[in-house]
Amino acid sequence: MSSDLKSKFLEVYNTLKSELINDPAFEFDEDSRQWVEKMLDYNVPGGKLNRGLSVIDSYQLLKGGELTKDEVFLASALGWCIEWLQAYFLVLDDIMDESHTRRGQPCWFRLPKVGMIAVNDGIILRNHIPRILKKHFRGKPYYVDLVDLFNEVEFQTASGQMIDLITTLVGEKDLSKYSLSTHRRIVQYKTAYYSFYLPVACALLMFGEDLDKHEEVKNVLIEMGTYFQVQDDYLDCFGAPEVIGKIGTDIEDFKCSWLVVKALELANENQKKTLHENYGKKDPSSVAKVKELYYTLNLQGVFEDYENASYTKLITSIEGHPSKAVQAVLKSFLGKIYKRQK
Amino acid sequence: MSSDLKSKFLEVYNTLKSELINDPAFEFDEDSRQWVEKMLDYNVPGGKLNRGLSVIDSYQLLKGGELTKDEVFLASALGWCIEWLQAYFLVLDDIMDESHTRRGQPCWFRLPKVGMIAVNDGIILRNHIPRILKKHFRGKPYYVDLVDLFNEVEFQTASGQMIDLITTLVGEKDLSKYSLSTHRRIVQYKTAYYSFYLPVACALLMFGEDLDKHEEVKNVLIEMGTYFQVQDDYLDCFGAPEVIGKIGTDIEDFKCSWLVVKALELANENQKKTLHENYGKKDPSSVAKVKELYYTLNLQGVFEDYENASYTKLITSIEGHPSKAVQAVLKSFLGKIYKRQK
Ligand SMILES: [Mg+2]
Ligand SMILES: [Mg+2]
Ligand SMILES: [Mg+2]
Ligand SMILES: [Mg+2]
Ligand SMILES: [Mg+2]
Ligand SMILES: [Mg+2]
Repeated sequence: MSSDLKSKFLEVYNTLKSELINDPAFEFDEDSRQWVEKMLDYNVPGGKLNRGLSVIDSYQLLKGGELTKDEVFLASALGWCIEWLQAYFLVLDDIMDESHTRRGQPCWFRLPKVGMIAVNDGIILRNHIPRILKKHFRGKPYYVDLVDLFNEVEFQTASGQMIDLITTLVGEKDLSKYSLSTHRRIVQYKTAYYSFYLPVACALLMFGEDLDKHEEVKNVLIEMGTYFQVQDDYLDCFGAPEVIGKIGTDIEDFKCSWLVVKALELANENQKKTLHENYGKKDPSSVAKVKELYYTLNLQGVFEDYENASYTKLITSIEGHPSKAVQAVLKSFLGKIYKRQK
Repeated sequence: MSSDLKSKFLEVYNTLKSELINDPAFEFDEDSRQWVEKMLDYNVPGGKLNRGLSVIDSYQLLKGGELTKDEVFLASALGWCIEWLQAYFLVLDDIMDESHTRRGQPCWFRLPKVGMIAVNDGIILRNHIPRILKKHFRGKPYYVDLVDLFNEVEFQTASGQMIDLITTLVGEKDLSKYSLSTHRRIVQYKTAYYSFYLPVACALLMFGEDLDKHEEVKNVLIEMGTYFQVQDDYLDCFGAPEVIGKIGTDIEDFKCSWLVVKALELANENQKKTLHENYGKKDPSSVAKVKELYYTLNLQGVFEDYENASYTKLITSIEGHPSKAVQAVLKSFLGKIYKRQK
C-alpha cells in the first residue's frame, strides 16, 4: 500500500466523522457533538488499521488497475466501517474483561467522566455503521447485500464473544472442558469473520461479485483468521513483551487458549494435575508452573509445526482458486501475518 | 385486541426463539443454546407488550378487515422485533443506571453468573432483530426500508440515551442547564421514536406505504410519545406506588424530569435556591423539600393543563389527516395513554 493511499484513507476518517456529528437524523447540540467527536477520536483511529486498509488493498488487486477518486473514497468508507465495528467490540470487550489499557492508553470506560456511559458509546459506534452505509451506498445495487453482510458478521462476532465468555465460566469449574473444537469455534466466530472475511467480502461486493459464489474464499479466510488467533495465543506467552506491546495474561485469566488446549492434549496424568491446580491463578508461582510445563511439552515446537502445516494448507487452497486476482488478494493477506512476531 | 390475537402473538415468540437458537449462521452447542434461551425468556416477553401488539393493531386498522394467517404472523414478527429492541435497551440501561429490579425481578446483570456478560447479551438481543428480518422479510419489496427504519430508530434512541447520560453530568454541576428544550430532545429521542413511531411505521411499511409520505403521522406520534414521557415523569412523583409498581427516584437521581424543568421555570429566586440545594440528593429530607416545592408551585395543576392542551392539540392534528384508517390508528394509540394512571 502506498503512503499516498494511507493518507487518503486517513482523510476519509475526518469526512465521515464530520458527517456523523452533523447527522440530521438527530438534533445535536454543542455538548453532544463534542462528546461524540472525542469518543470517536479516542477509540476509532488509534489502531494498526490493517482491517480497514485491506479493503482498499483487496479492491485494488481485484480491479488490477488504478482506482478512481470515487473508488478510493468508497473502499475507504467500507474500511472505516470495519474499524468502527472493531472499536465498538473493543470498547465493550474492555468493560467485560475489566481491562485497564488499550493501544497504550487507558480503556475508554476507565476515564472518570465516562464510566458506564461507555456502554452506550459502544452502541453509538455500532450505530454509525448503518449511517455511513446509508449515506454512501444507499443507491448501489449491492446496498442490501452490504447491510446483510455487516449484520451477519456482527451476529457471528457477538456469538463468538458469548461462547468465549460462557466457556470461561464452564472452564473455571472444569478445565477438561477446554478442547480444540471449542477453541476453534471461539476464535472462528469472535475473530476470523470480522477480521479476515469481512474486509475481502466488502471488496468483492463493491467489485460487483455475488458472495454466494465465493464460499471457498470465505473458507480460506476463516482458516487464516484461525491461524492468526493461534499466533495471538502463542505470542501472549512466548512473544517478547517489548515487541507485542503488552504482557500477556491468558494463563491468569483462565483463557481457552490454543496453548492450554494443546497442553491438555499432550500432558500425562501428572502434568494434567499441574495444569488443573495452577491454571487461572493470579499468583506468579502458579503462572510459572504452567509456563514451565509448556516448555517441558515443547509447545514452541508444536506451534512451529502447526504454523508450517497451516501455511502449506493455506497456500495449496489459495493456488487452487481459478482467479489470479483472488489468489493475489488471499496471498497478500497471508503474507502480512505469516511468521509475525507481533 | 382480541385475546385470540394476543395468544397468537405469544405463539410467534416461541417460533422466533426456536429459529434463533438454531440459526445456521452460528454453530450452537448445548451450553450456548441454553444460555440464549434463558436470556431471551428472562428479558424479552415479560413486559406489557404494548409496543409489539400495537403493530398488529395498527395493521388491522389500516387494512380494515380480517387478517390472513400470514399477515398475523408477519405483523407479530415485526412486533417482536420492537420488543427485542426494547429488551436490548433495557438490559443495557439497567447496567448504566445501576438499577436493581426490572419488571418485578432482579435486573439480568444482577444475576451472579451473568454480571458483565449482560453487555454482550444486550448485543445478542440487538443482533437478533436483523436475523428475524432477514429470515422473514428478505424477499419483500419493503425489506430495505424496514432494515433502514430499524437502524435509524435505533440510532435515534441511542442518541437520546447519550444526551440523557451527559445532560445528567452537566446538570449535576449546574441545575439551571435543565430546560424544556433539553427535556423535549431527551424524551423525543430516547422514547418517542421507538415506542410510538416505530410500531406504526412497521405497520405502514407492511401495508405497502411509503414512509416519506407520512411525515405528519410521524410528527403526531412523536408528540404523543413526548406526552407519554411527561406522564411518566409526573407519575414518578405523583403516581401511587401500588399502581405504578415502583417507587420513583427521579429526584434522588438528578433526572432532567419535566417536573424539575417546570419548577425551575416557575420558581422565584428563593425557591430556585431550594431546588439547587436539594435536587439530586439521596437523603429523604432533601427529597421531601423538593416535593413540597412541587406542591407549592401546584405542579399537579400545571400538569393537568398540559395534559388537556396536549390532548386537544393531538386530536386536532389527527382529525386533520385525510385517511380515516390512519386516524383510527392514531386515535387508538392516544386512547391507550390518555389520563393513564400507570
Ligand atoms: Mg479483552
Ligand atoms: Mg474478551
Ligand atoms: Mg490474546
Ligand atoms: Mg434506567
Ligand atoms: Mg437510563
Ligand atoms: Mg421515569
